[in-house]
Amino acid sequence: MALSRVSASGACNRFTTLSRSSSSSSSTTSALTRFGLETVLLAKQPILRSSPLTYRTMSTSPRLRSLNIDNVNPHVRKAEYAVRGELAVRSEEYRAQLASGKGKDLPFDNVISANIGNPQQLDQKPITFFRQVLSLLEYPPLLEKEDVLLNQLGYKKDVIERAKWLLEQVGSVGAYSASTGPQGIKESIAKFIEKRDGHPADPSSIYLSAGASSGVNTLLHVICAGPKTGVLVPIPQYPLYTATLSLLDATCVPYYLDEANAWSTSASSITSALTTAKEAGTDVRAIAIINPGNPTGASLSYEDVESVIDLAASEHLVILADEVYQTNVFIGKFHSFKAVLRDMQKKTPGKYDTVELVSLHSVSKGIVGECGHRGGYFELCGFDPEVVAQIYKFVSISLCAPVIGQCLVELMVNPPNEGEPSYDLYKSERDGIFAGLQSRATALHKAFQAMEGVECGPPQGSMYLFPTITLSQKAIEAAKKDGKTPDAFYAMKMLEATGVCVVPGAGFGQKEGTLHFRTTFLAPGTEWVEGLAKFHEGFMAEYR
Amino acid sequence: MALSRVSASGACNRFTTLSRSSSSSSSTTSALTRFGLETVLLAKQPILRSSPLTYRTMSTSPRLRSLNIDNVNPHVRKAEYAVRGELAVRSEEYRAQLASGKGKDLPFDNVISANIGNPQQLDQKPITFFRQVLSLLEYPPLLEKEDVLLNQLGYKKDVIERAKWLLEQVGSVGAYSASTGPQGIKESIAKFIEKRDGHPADPSSIYLSAGASSGVNTLLHVICAGPKTGVLVPIPQYPLYTATLSLLDATCVPYYLDEANAWSTSASSITSALTTAKEAGTDVRAIAIINPGNPTGASLSYEDVESVIDLAASEHLVILADEVYQTNVFIGKFHSFKAVLRDMQKKTPGKYDTVELVSLHSVSKGIVGECGHRGGYFELCGFDPEVVAQIYKFVSISLCAPVIGQCLVELMVNPPNEGEPSYDLYKSERDGIFAGLQSRATALHKAFQAMEGVECGPPQGSMYLFPTITLSQKAIEAAKKDGKTPDAFYAMKMLEATGVCVVPGAGFGQKEGTLHFRTTFLAPGTEWVEGLAKFHEGFMAEYR
Repeated sequence: MALSRVSASGACNRFTTLSRSSSSSSSTTSALTRFGLETVLLAKQPILRSSPLTYRTMSTSPRLRSLNIDNVNPHVRKAEYAVRGELAVRSEEYRAQLASGKGKDLPFDNVISANIGNPQQLDQKPITFFRQVLSLLEYPPLLEKEDVLLNQLGYKKDVIERAKWLLEQVGSVGAYSASTGPQGIKESIAKFIEKRDGHPADPSSIYLSAGASSGVNTLLHVICAGPKTGVLVPIPQYPLYTATLSLLDATCVPYYLDEANAWSTSASSITSALTTAKEAGTDVRAIAIINPGNPTGASLSYEDVESVIDLAASEHLVILADEVYQTNVFIGKFHSFKAVLRDMQKKTPGKYDTVELVSLHSVSKGIVGECGHRGGYFELCGFDPEVVAQIYKFVSISLCAPVIGQCLVELMVNPPNEGEPSYDLYKSERDGIFAGLQSRATALHKAFQAMEGVECGPPQGSMYLFPTITLSQKAIEAAKKDGKTPDAFYAMKMLEATGVCVVPGAGFGQKEGTLHFRTTFLAPGTEWVEGLAKFHEGFMAEYR
Repeated sequence: MALSRVSASGACNRFTTLSRSSSSSSSTTSALTRFGLETVLLAKQPILRSSPLTYRTMSTSPRLRSLNIDNVNPHVRKAEYAVRGELAVRSEEYRAQLASGKGKDLPFDNVISANIGNPQQLDQKPITFFRQVLSLLEYPPLLEKEDVLLNQLGYKKDVIERAKWLLEQVGSVGAYSASTGPQGIKESIAKFIEKRDGHPADPSSIYLSAGASSGVNTLLHVICAGPKTGVLVPIPQYPLYTATLSLLDATCVPYYLDEANAWSTSASSITSALTTAKEAGTDVRAIAIINPGNPTGASLSYEDVESVIDLAASEHLVILADEVYQTNVFIGKFHSFKAVLRDMQKKTPGKYDTVELVSLHSVSKGIVGECGHRGGYFELCGFDPEVVAQIYKFVSISLCAPVIGQCLVELMVNPPNEGEPSYDLYKSERDGIFAGLQSRATALHKAFQAMEGVECGPPQGSMYLFPTITLSQKAIEAAKKDGKTPDAFYAMKMLEATGVCVVPGAGFGQKEGTLHFRTTFLAPGTEWVEGLAKFHEGFMAEYR
């Protein structure tokens, strides 16, 4: 047949067709029944009209198009991502109404997107040193006007030197870089890790990525071999993990964080989830840890990190350490998995040599807050070289991470040092952002404590608070009538009344019978916080 | 079990395990046997050691790690991407040797990466207007020094105005944008399409993406429901398509471009491929068209575009129109699928209303050549709204395309107009780049014509030439001994002798028994072309 006339890698790899076992479609269908899509955009799609694995050719309805909701990729359909779901879409509609002057009847003057950690959309200012360097990278002829830069535009000598150095590394920010990033930038990141951890790091194990999301996507693609593959995911979690596992048709194995104990991670809860999954025949291969936590903000103690590594070593689990909030810690101290792993390898030679750890970091969060630049990296430790080669191939298919974002990663890990011309301004900006985050978090937490039926532990880190809400039976029934989960119903009412967009706890996972919502504490001012309190009071009164 | 205690979208969607039919693994294995991995990085991996769908738990070897080459995602393992494969890796090693001074014994002084369309890595200069605007977006405080910008740094008024306008649209380039891009940028793109096509375009059907690659990835993810789904792909093709279909475990249905006829696309070759695939039980849902072609450079005539649309309409195929080279046409004229579709809809009301077309464009190629910025967009026409909602959800999971890249897309589609301050410089830069590409293409083509056993049609467009090479039996046997396809063997010898890195035709697909290689014509100067001719002469003599 046709394919046999094609050779090598330009060719198509499959030339027979498979039929999925019916257990597949039925299990998927029941999964959909069980975990409704209420919290996402597609609320009203006829999700159960047919089994997700029905092919269009088997459909009986007259056919107009190639694609319809019944024949698209069932794993895409199954994937859920509430952070930008129905509420986010509605909030953007409100924003547009207000901008166009059509929003006069709305009970609020502006929309506050507390649903997503987007610091610069609110009022966080970029770090001057970073942006000055980036401006020179975008238009290098400015470097020929050094006197103007220095004397009239307030650029400092170290800004100019860094821009020249970065241009030597990348050539042009308009050119593709090597798939894993330019050597010089990877060396800078390795130096940062060495300094942070007190252990050496290898530049060739570092991969620049388009934010941490793209790194997680890469790793899960390589790890997940099919429905039998399981990955341990904390609940609550950032939904990127569950969404990506859905896309890959792999099995998510949830382990629960302990809300009563400041959302801590315990080896025992991981072990029990692991046991259950193994009994169900799942090949559990990896564990995702978000530290500091999203949405919880909790950061792991040194001992907790040790116990996770110990477990991973004995159970042969790849550790996915999502450490994008490592600079945002208000309570306790950040301990990187890489540092603790190297400590353990020193203490007990041999025992931990083959622990597979990937640590992820990004420019999006923390005090940098440059998520629009889509910059990040991941570091691999202990992987089999043949597996590393597959990771390389996978990243090479998407060519390279945005080069200006890669340069921003370099600036994040290698900021001005004490004594350098840009240091004082950098330090005051950095400290100011950190203090601002902390004081906003405290104010918001105080407001939550005053609200009836709302419980919230003190802010620990990251950019979020994740309060528990207790709603009346009347509210729960009203939600049901509205085809929403109670927390989604509450969050929608909040948006309609105040213009504040948060994410229902269901978007991150929560124990049955508990209700939460996640809000960032990025928005400036106290007005919106008072608005929340007022709304909550009214809501509780209405549904008492 | 554990999962039942988790609710809604934070939860894990699967809680039973599936077993794949054994036909899957065997067919995949035979596919691998048939289309070896010689051209990619992983040449020496023990690819047939076991069936790709063997799970690690079934392995007999003592277990050290979670992941090994036998248990990673078999679809990742199957995926091939020669553009950055073994040759590219070797060329980077040479580059590093030369940079470190260790390359003194190499027979060349520098490495020429003709394997990848990366204009600014060679000597293509960025467009001044674009980069001046981007520099202001990265460091907006410069806008407060308008006099310095105008009088001392050579910025023009329209640069400043555009930067201010773009900042109004995005807020900060460090903030996430809406998942599909800011409204204002989508409106600019719609205006560009209207002007180009003479038909209206709808901003809400436009999706900003991280280059065209990410757009193709999104669309194929939604289209491909499993192994039964087929997508028509031109052969030769840019391997992104086959690689992504492998990752999705979908069926690639190759249709052949007619080399004897300047690599033209004929409806009959598509129809015959379609028929064969249908007979094999494949549910063919989409057709990818690369126009102008990569690697061929061929651009479709108006009639060819019409006939593809006609076929797509009657066969209910989604048209994926990859139009990233639309400004690089040396012979004939570019006809966008969108324009021709709208013409046909006008001519024959009703008949083409439900044709599903996605057109992709990017800042990476053409005269812009800003691939490092990872900017692009796609436009959807005729899709079912429920399917569109799935596309929206998919793109929202990766948050948004790099915002500075989105701004660059806006600049590309809305460059300075005649009479505006930056127009003259823009025009001379644009025309200079175009003329340079054309003259380099012509020089390279002339050299190929003079080479024994090399056939190459005149350069038509894009950035590539794709000559046929006829090698002796002796060369073919030497390649076999070396474990390479003959074209990969030839390309490796070329790299070792000249430092010029090209991609073997096998990386794009070619008819059995034919051999090609793809080279960009981006590299300046004539020296490297003479080097190629000299190498070729030697190679032919050695293996005569």
